Amino acid sequence: MKENSYLLPLYKRLDLGFVKGKKSVLFDENEKDYIDFASGVGVNSLGYANKKVLKTINKQAKRVLHTSNIYHIKPQEKCAKRIVNLSGFDMKCFFCNSGAEANESAIKLARKYGNTAFETPKYKIITIKNSFHGRTIATLKATAQEDKHKYFAPFPEGFVYANDIKEAISLIDDSTVAVMLELIQGEGGIFMQDVLLVKELEKVLKEKKLLLIIDEVQTGVYRSGEFLISQHFGIKPDIVTLAKGLASGIPIGVMMTSLKDVFTFGDHGSTFGGNFLSTATCNKVLKILEKYSDSGKLKQNIKFFDDYLAFFINKYPNLFLQKNGFGFMQGLVLKDEKKLNEIINSSLKNGLLVLKSGKNIIRFLPPIIISKKEMIKGFNRFEEVLENLI
Amino acid sequence: MKENSYLLPLYKRLDLGFVKGKKSVLFDENEKDYIDFASGVGVNSLGYANKKVLKTINKQAKRVLHTSNIYHIKPQEKCAKRIVNLSGFDMKCFFCNSGAEANESAIKLARKYGNTAFETPKYKIITIKNSFHGRTIATLKATAQEDKHKYFAPFPEGFVYANDIKEAISLIDDSTVAVMLELIQGEGGIFMQDVLLVKELEKVLKEKKLLLIIDEVQTGVYRSGEFLISQHFGIKPDIVTLAKGLASGIPIGVMMTSLKDVFTFGDHGSTFGGNFLSTATCNKVLKILEKYSDSGKLKQNIKFFDDYLAFFINKYPNLFLQKNGFGFMQGLVLKDEKKLNEIINSSLKNGLLVLKSGKNIIRFLPPIIISKKEMIKGFNRFEEVLENLI
Ligand SMILES: Cc1ncc(COP(=O)(O)O)c(C=O)c1O
Ligand SMILES: Cc1ncc(COP(=O)(O)O)c(C=O)c1O
Repeated sequence: MKENSYLLPLYKRLDLGFVKGKKSVLFDENEKDYIDFASGVGVNSLGYANKKVLKTINKQAKRVLHTSNIYHIKPQEKCAKRIVNLSGFDMKCFFCNSGAEANESAIKLARKYGNTAFETPKYKIITIKNSFHGRTIATLKATAQEDKHKYFAPFPEGFVYANDIKEAISLIDDSTVAVMLELIQGEGGIFMQDVLLVKELEKVLKEKKLLLIIDEVQTGVYRSGEFLISQHFGIKPDIVTLAKGLASGIPIGVMMTSLKDVFTFGDHGSTFGGNFLSTATCNKVLKILEKYSDSGKLKQNIKFFDDYLAFFINKYPNLFLQKNGFGFMQGLVLKDEKKLNEIINSSLKNGLLVLKSGKNIIRFLPPIIISKKEMIKGFNRFEEVLENLI
Repeated sequence: MKENSYLLPLYKRLDLGFVKGKKSVLFDENEKDYIDFASGVGVNSLGYANKKVLKTINKQAKRVLHTSNIYHIKPQEKCAKRIVNLSGFDMKCFFCNSGAEANESAIKLARKYGNTAFETPKYKIITIKNSFHGRTIATLKATAQEDKHKYFAPFPEGFVYANDIKEAISLIDDSTVAVMLELIQGEGGIFMQDVLLVKELEKVLKEKKLLLIIDEVQTGVYRSGEFLISQHFGIKPDIVTLAKGLASGIPIGVMMTSLKDVFTFGDHGSTFGGNFLSTATCNKVLKILEKYSDSGKLKQNIKFFDDYLAFFINKYPNLFLQKNGFGFMQGLVLKDEKKLNEIINSSLKNGLLVLKSGKNIIRFLPPIIISKKEMIKGFNRFEEVLENLI
């Protein structure tokens, strides 16, 4: 396919596009099917054409898609309640339209807290090497990958990069207000943080009344098996951000926080954020996922998925170093980074969608509701690709 | 209604919410109807429950809502082509999810251009007093309302505020890369810029190879009677941003530019931006609006609307100073700012939705497709409110 001449050349698009999907399978123009281990980079939590989601969207579109936040919006209220209850945290929500906007909201909240709650203002936010927090100017600067900061200066000051959590703790000083991190780095190599270190960080921050911000844009919405991976870690962040999987394909983001009174009227806002369509859909998606999780099936399927990846590590020791990640967010680390594109392209040809992360990792991010049957089909196709490679 | 305890208190919500709408009328829980002169602050360009939009949403939801931008996305390509053609400009598009994200994209593009195209880097962006460009950290700083910048420092440097266009021209120096402005300030008093001054600014910028960025998040998508108000002004901006009305209620934003080669792979991106649902809907919305505009009906209806507002200015000289704005984006300026909330609340009680702008302006932002019948009904209700007031 040729590059469209009306789109800026910002993406390296693979040579295909889809016309429809069903459950965890996508179809191209020639009706060729692809098992989807990528889910639109973690967005399509319920896969494609889910009947209940369809019904919700259709019903809501018939009534009203959007009103302004100067009026009450019932589904937004219900959705906030559901998200807070699922988290188990005593928090309140703000709705926006993307992961970047959720993190902008978190940074603004931390800044207001730091600039108002202490005798001398605190404003520094420490982030972790290879993190990814978004593409707006502030979230890009929060992203600790300096090669991404080449062209867009001047950036806002006050972001400090640590190589790891230990260093983050040591970098906390009198002007630090928060540490912000992903518990598994999605774009930065499916790298999972150590539970004990994260808990130590949490303790240090709590003692100093500083904030722990967890970016769950990619890890959240049951990707780890729990609603939030923070729950799996057993921590209580001060701010959590969510986006991707919340409404299984409709743009939405959330910033939730236990700091209920720091933001007041006029401090922040969004035109589209929290509208009828996105929050009614989010509500339905989360209801379906909660039931699925409560049934025990989600954990069973994650176990099945996990065992499959372990099988590949064992079967192809010359190809793979190890597997990274957790739950439905895992990567196979290649010994030879030159094989990455070949595997992804051959998988594509063989009817399987997988992603990259870092330079040498094949990333798996299937729909949360992927079935055993679909996994078997997908992994069979993957095995064929590997067999042809070696 | 009481404040929902799961939502951060960021909005001063009026004491009602809606359950459904039809054309330019909304209905609350008690089936009471409200003529909508607000359209979700400019979002619901086709009003509510438009059958063709409904069909498009339903059809697209049945097929696929979202895939990643690492694949080709047909409706995104079509939508970009349609937007560029409607603008008449030789431009390319980037899709995101809000007005703030569109302006972030514009600022990043201008910065990359300024930092790479000249011998000494240029980075300063001049914006106009009382502008509104969004709620992310960079767009908030671009918003020349310093009372909004109290709590969120450090902001990015490089934004310079001018009282008006004349001053903007005089402030251009060796480190200036762009001037960014709304041709009608939506939040800042429905203030419309002078055509000749804007053309002078355009000329000065072109001569220096600097950029004119027009924020059409609120003025765009036929609100002025033209697809872009830039077309009405007869100017050729280097960058235009759009959002609100594009998909009549689904979150979407666009940054379009004649700088086709400044951004390259990896410079910018968005997970949800340009997905199937938002761009398929946008495509249909723009098709409907184009036909409506081409038929001559839009301009007729704007004339009808305009005459009505002029009638109120004449009939209530003690109440109103003047009217501001253009097309379907106008305001009645009150002599006594204390009457503003009373008029808005009484209108609400009388089944009419209007907005505020600044301290003393009643803002009218109806759906683009509002009918004469709906306008008559709405303005009759407005007249009743005014009669009771004097
Ligand atoms: C952890 C994390 N944070 C933030 C973002 C940015 O989200 P968005 O692309 O929706 O702005 C991403 C996107 O990949 C992400 O993975
Ligand atoms: C002119 C203008 N620019 C930008 C924005 C920000 O748009 P959003 O709320 O979608 O981020 C607005 C919103 O009101 C606006 O009117």
